[in-house]
Amino acid sequence: MAGFNVRSVLVTGANRGIGLELVKQFLGKSNPPKWVFATCRDPEGMQAQELQNLASRHPNLGIVALEVTDPANVKTAAARVEKHLKGSGLNLLINNAGILRLTTLETETLEDMSLVYATNVIGPLLVSQVFLHLLKKAAQQSTQTGLSCSKAAIVNISSEGGSISKLFAWQLGQVISYRCSKAALNMLTKCQSLGYGGDGILSVAVHPGWVQTDMGSPQAPLTGEASAQGILNVFPTLTEKDNGGFVSWEGKDLPW
Amino acid sequence: MAGFNVRSVLVTGANRGIGLELVKQFLGKSNPPKWVFATCRDPEGMQAQELQNLASRHPNLGIVALEVTDPANVKTAAARVEKHLKGSGLNLLINNAGILRLTTLETETLEDMSLVYATNVIGPLLVSQVFLHLLKKAAQQSTQTGLSCSKAAIVNISSEGGSISKLFAWQLGQVISYRCSKAALNMLTKCQSLGYGGDGILSVAVHPGWVQTDMGSPQAPLTGEASAQGILNVFPTLTEKDNGGFVSWEGKDLPW
Repeated sequence: MAGFNVRSVLVTGANRGIGLELVKQFLGKSNPPKWVFATCRDPEGMQAQELQNLASRHPNLGIVALEVTDPANVKTAAARVEKHLKGSGLNLLINNAGILRLTTLETETLEDMSLVYATNVIGPLLVSQVFLHLLKKAAQQSTQTGLSCSKAAIVNISSEGGSISKLFAWQLGQVISYRCSKAALNMLTKCQSLGYGGDGILSVAVHPGWVQTDMGSPQAPLTGEASAQGILNVFPTLTEKDNGGFVSWEGKDLPW
Repeated sequence: MAGFNVRSVLVTGANRGIGLELVKQFLGKSNPPKWVFATCRDPEGMQAQELQNLASRHPNLGIVALEVTDPANVKTAAARVEKHLKGSGLNLLINNAGILRLTTLETETLEDMSLVYATNVIGPLLVSQVFLHLLKKAAQQSTQTGLSCSKAAIVNISSEGGSISKLFAWQLGQVISYRCSKAALNMLTKCQSLGYGGDGILSVAVHPGWVQTDMGSPQAPLTGEASAQGILNVFPTLTEKDNGGFVSWEGKDLPW
């Protein structure tokens, strides 16, 4: 970990849950990034209080308004980030913003299917498109060979619930819209790995574990802290062999 | 094939391409179904001319208006089909309606992602929900044990392009929205297999091959006739071992 040096990282949906934990742990590193960008829909709102407190203590933290399903808003956010970076690229983009609806095959609706897909899949697509030039710049500015999270990477926070072969925790929740969205996000990750690998950008889908968050419920076995810690330990191990892959917070390869 | 006796089948998106071919071949069987329901958005329109010609020769063919992304319209269509069935269940529901946009990682948009997902994933979900009671009725009326296409089945027409591990024909077309939708449709199929298997309903995702249709382009290696023929040959081979599976028009198991 000590050797894992990311100059700039952006985390979407960073005002709570795993996103917030990732931001905290990046800031708490012995060699923290020069820039940590934490995005959320409403940086001024009550929901972003913890981020605001963090920002008051960490001048390297920038809070950026970002609604991942609004193309114009994504562009505005990218322009703000680019201005902060002052000519540097963005090393690590973590598409973490996601939602879940407690639905079943019987209760699933057009509206929930559309909403969950927009946030969990279209969001990561749009954000990656718009931040791509900053990721490319980071790859070009790097002296590292191969692919890595400290050079330039897109990490899509997926879920083992999106593994078609495993259908993790079906008995605990069918959550059809969520599962379909995460399978599609895994596909997007694979497509990004083929499309962006040649530009020196690594693309990986990460399962953060079943975590005690608003989404994961209090019964979940894993704390947000442990999940984020695990993910940060996995980042330095990811190389070109993982491009387009699906790994857990423990570093295990997961099946589609 | 001679022993494969389906009393009733419904095919969505049946006015052209693979859907139309499936309808033709069901009608041309030596033991055709008692009811073949062919759905399309506009049964009176020019695009449905071939279906109308078929219906004039085959009294067992019913053309039903169905826009798969419109919940109210799906319910109206199901009520019409139920009336025709006069107390019988529906044996085989083929969710074939689908669209493709020639997009890349660079050109993909919120609008295309939403539209393709609505037709290719939300449509099959809604149609299956609304026709479920007719599929259950068919399973209850059947004397067959186990699961089969002639008893009660949902067949989702997927694509090897939606195989995350294979990413079939990437060099020929990135078609991100399409690939994401088909990976999600495969997940939906797996969910349906767990949710509906206990009701005696088989759920399978079928890759029809790369076919010479409006969607597949004239360069495709396979005729619609050969694809539909292959699929009809695969149907009688499908049993409970295939529930939640992904098979090709040649009967080969495909990886997620």
